[in-house]
Amino acid sequence: MTGDLLIRSVRPWPNVPGTPPVDVLCEDGRVAAFGADVDPPPGVAVVDGRGGVLLPAFTDAHAHLDSTRLGLPFRPHSADEGLAGLIDNDRRHWRSAEASVAERATHTLGRTIASGATHVRSHAQVDVDSGLEKLEGVLAAREAHAGRAHVEVVAFPQCGILREKGTAELLDAALRAGADLVGGLDPAGYDRDPVRHLDVVFGLAEKHQRGVDVHLHDAGTLGAFQVELICERVSALGMRGKVTISHAFALSGVDDSRRTELVELLAEHDVAVTTVAPGVREPLPLRQLRWAGVRLGLGQDGIRDYWSPYGNGDMLDRTWQLAYRNGFRRDELVEMCVDIATRGGAAVMGKALGLTEGSPAELVVVPGDTVTAAVMDRAPRTVVVHEGRVVAAGGEVV
Amino acid sequence: MTGDLLIRSVRPWPNVPGTPPVDVLCEDGRVAAFGADVDPPPGVAVVDGRGGVLLPAFTDAHAHLDSTRLGLPFRPHSADEGLAGLIDNDRRHWRSAEASVAERATHTLGRTIASGATHVRSHAQVDVDSGLEKLEGVLAAREAHAGRAHVEVVAFPQCGILREKGTAELLDAALRAGADLVGGLDPAGYDRDPVRHLDVVFGLAEKHQRGVDVHLHDAGTLGAFQVELICERVSALGMRGKVTISHAFALSGVDDSRRTELVELLAEHDVAVTTVAPGVREPLPLRQLRWAGVRLGLGQDGIRDYWSPYGNGDMLDRTWQLAYRNGFRRDELVEMCVDIATRGGAAVMGKALGLTEGSPAELVVVPGDTVTAAVMDRAPRTVVVHEGRVVAAGGEVV
Ligand SMILES: [Zn+2]
Ligand SMILES: [Zn+2]
Repeated sequence: MTGDLLIRSVRPWPNVPGTPPVDVLCEDGRVAAFGADVDPPPGVAVVDGRGGVLLPAFTDAHAHLDSTRLGLPFRPHSADEGLAGLIDNDRRHWRSAEASVAERATHTLGRTIASGATHVRSHAQVDVDSGLEKLEGVLAAREAHAGRAHVEVVAFPQCGILREKGTAELLDAALRAGADLVGGLDPAGYDRDPVRHLDVVFGLAEKHQRGVDVHLHDAGTLGAFQVELICERVSALGMRGKVTISHAFALSGVDDSRRTELVELLAEHDVAVTTVAPGVREPLPLRQLRWAGVRLGLGQDGIRDYWSPYGNGDMLDRTWQLAYRNGFRRDELVEMCVDIATRGGAAVMGKALGLTEGSPAELVVVPGDTVTAAVMDRAPRTVVVHEGRVVAAGGEVV
Repeated sequence: MTGDLLIRSVRPWPNVPGTPPVDVLCEDGRVAAFGADVDPPPGVAVVDGRGGVLLPAFTDAHAHLDSTRLGLPFRPHSADEGLAGLIDNDRRHWRSAEASVAERATHTLGRTIASGATHVRSHAQVDVDSGLEKLEGVLAAREAHAGRAHVEVVAFPQCGILREKGTAELLDAALRAGADLVGGLDPAGYDRDPVRHLDVVFGLAEKHQRGVDVHLHDAGTLGAFQVELICERVSALGMRGKVTISHAFALSGVDDSRRTELVELLAEHDVAVTTVAPGVREPLPLRQLRWAGVRLGLGQDGIRDYWSPYGNGDMLDRTWQLAYRNGFRRDELVEMCVDIATRGGAAVMGKALGLTEGSPAELVVVPGDTVTAAVMDRAPRTVVVHEGRVVAAGGEVV
């Protein structure tokens, strides 16, 4: 069910400093009109944007809601170095959290929505230790926030597929249980057999007619090879537009001509990319990916969990992080980060957002003089709108 | 004049989760005692730490208070690329700010103090365009916050010394007018004559018996050469402990054995280093510098000015940035960043801070379960204490 809403006094991006705010009328879940002093049709709710910047709502295109400890007592980081150390650390601790997966995922999804995100793609770990328990927790969180955000869930083999017997069967069960996509993890570098790993992933995708989202930390030529393997499968199975590569560090660690080849390959196969703006690893070639037409989204990754103390549920904070890490000072580049964090991530999830008449009423109002100032200030969001209804205000879900 | 104060209910770093909070009695500007339910001596002010984490106060060891536009309407970034473009952009715009240098510096210094910093080293641009006007603005801000923070001011030749006639004389005048240190800027890469540049800088330092703080963005072997030139002058003039190199990108762009040589050279000459946790440039070898005994501080750099939209006056946010950019997940590494941002920067300014009996009562109380959690949360500071007096509370100066 979609809503009607009048948002008073906002400055839609691109806003020119000094331009007076306008009102935005949403009808039937879509932006219907912009204007000065719009009269609300009878019975239509009215909310005050307080002159803030109007943006398309954020999309968290890469979250791990199943592992979050946000809101619980802080635990010192206890993992050994490397992916195996992190996986092991999580296995030793996740069951002893003070709250269930569903409760934790629900809390953090709420913080994410309050920050202005109305589209979220969350991975949910599926492995022989946790079975479908984590997936079910994330599905419960989605249900708890039904009507506030559109949430996709990836059945994610965080511990590899081939390393532990039974994982492929669990992924199959996860897709039957409600997962929207099937995930993968470093088919070569971690699971040690890229072809078999990807054959399982794409086999399940074909069987269940679902999308794919592969974590690919593998860098350099090994990562590049796997980008090719993924694109070959996209081509063979007719899966253009249905596949995402997360992290994709291979795009940063190869030379310019090879990078250009890979970017063009992604564009040709309409394979999307997500980044989490990592601190140490090289940033992705953001501009090159966008120029080539590759759908590119931003995510929070783990949010204060057994993997990392970072992440706070705030997609605007993460947008700042993307701009800072890339050294962007010019407003158009900071705004590009906002575009990646809003429309870009939505495109990864197959949704077209915008700020024109007819656009879905997926909106966030952020205090700030300009879009760039709003990113730098990172003030609590004034209003968040999903399907034409207010779902958060003043930094809290409603 | 220093103060007496009882701070109720804080958990001094290192704090163990679950350990009950204690009270801290400050007498005559120093930490006098820690204990449970301390009775305040008659007439001593009492402030509630609300169970927060107690840290030594922050030090902003590298700020540019003269250029800040924090709190004024946001202006889009308008500079061309490169240092020359940035310098020129500032020159074209700074006079048309909506408030004087003194007003702007005073506002941002207040935000910095409210964030928990009671020691600040600010550069003030001295050049033939602005003369001593920017220096006088920063000195006025120091005066406006006298009693809230200890502020050092560097007479900083932002436009080079040799490129424009009269700059050396202006630096001389700046030191007579109240600047505490003399600055320098890329003696080779920007000013084109490292020996003559450094001879002017160290000549003025010797003449006025003041310290030196040189911006050194020059990287690789050229930067390394200038580190040597600086250390040679420290040795010749007996200036151990009086000289700082800011940015020091040369430490990241050379091979391991050369880096070790340079770090040992800095340690041997007791030359301090400051960083601003840049987003794109390689981070400094933080652990190596500290192991070698090099004094190492953290700064905000420009704070929303004609140079960059980043910076918000919050040293805890900048501490988070340092940890994130270095990929630190382990608590002891995040805490090392806090140590750099507090005691490290104070050591750059020649002050010994700490949390033991007898330490100067330069303190900040931050909400959070642990030190690392406090960095991740970045909540408004509960209490800030300078010389045994409360100078800020609840995120605002008092
Ligand atoms: Zn992930
Ligand atoms: Zn500087």
